[in-house]
Amino acid sequence: MSSISFHPRQSLEQVEEGCMLAPKFGVDGLVPCVTTDATSHEVLMLGWMNAEALRRTLETGEAHYFSRSRQVMWRKGATSGLVQNVVEARIDDDQDAIWLRVEIGGAGASCHVGYRSCFYRAIPTVENAGDPLMFTESAKTFDPVAVYGDAPNPTLL
Amino acid sequence: MSSISFHPRQSLEQVEEGCMLAPKFGVDGLVPCVTTDATSHEVLMLGWMNAEALRRTLETGEAHYFSRSRQVMWRKGATSGLVQNVVEARIDDDQDAIWLRVEIGGAGASCHVGYRSCFYRAIPTVENAGDPLMFTESAKTFDPVAVYGDAPNPTLL
Repeated sequence: MSSISFHPRQSLEQVEEGCMLAPKFGVDGLVPCVTTDATSHEVLMLGWMNAEALRRTLETGEAHYFSRSRQVMWRKGATSGLVQNVVEARIDDDQDAIWLRVEIGGAGASCHVGYRSCFYRAIPTVENAGDPLMFTESAKTFDPVAVYGDAPNPTLL
Repeated sequence: MSSISFHPRQSLEQVEEGCMLAPKFGVDGLVPCVTTDATSHEVLMLGWMNAEALRRTLETGEAHYFSRSRQVMWRKGATSGLVQNVVEARIDDDQDAIWLRVEIGGAGASCHVGYRSCFYRAIPTVENAGDPLMFTESAKTFDPVAVYGDAPNPTLL
């Protein structure tokens, strides 16, 4: 296993057109990560990574994130078993966002509420703008109480 | 055209399981937005929206974002012509992230550097971790100088 170096950001050309990994973490030390299902192409979640989570994701091929509610790095699936195996990792033009294409074993779900994707509700637009949200999944893929037990809900109001 | 109401966030159950739009904007007033191509399923960009950008996106069916480098709301395509027409808008479990599925006219590109997707570089993982980034698009879709002229580059070091 190689070790990952994050390079200093020296020029726009280097960051945008170069081949050196030079991620920009926000003032909170985090970078957003879009995670999609490599097979269905569905967006499963939008997570956050600190430097350690990004490094471990790249080195192990398993998605790691940083929990903003718990303020800890976590390996996705450590509790639920729904590990995300990275098929491909990408970085965007200004290197301040990550895209992971993943495969998930078992029920193939990612959302702590029990749905396959965290994005299980559509927002009506244009002539229907203002109407109630519409559920896009008819049933939960797993029972979150059975999977997570009494672990605290990561959602913050 | 209806007018959009953002509801107050009153309970976890309401936010996660309800049908009321109650987005959570960060301390900077912004929510991240994943935008994918409705046809190719590719992740095109990760943008940011303030309340006004989200409202206008939902009301007009055209993607609007907030530029963190310029600190203004913008309609995607206003300069480049590469307008993003929203096929579907979704919100995630805790309502702090948006997913837009869009169709783009013309060259179908989204990235200010000239590529189709902003995520035009793959990051090597596992046994190849630490290797240089790999370009996933062999050529730019458009010439950014011809399209954007001398507009300031939105990338910040």
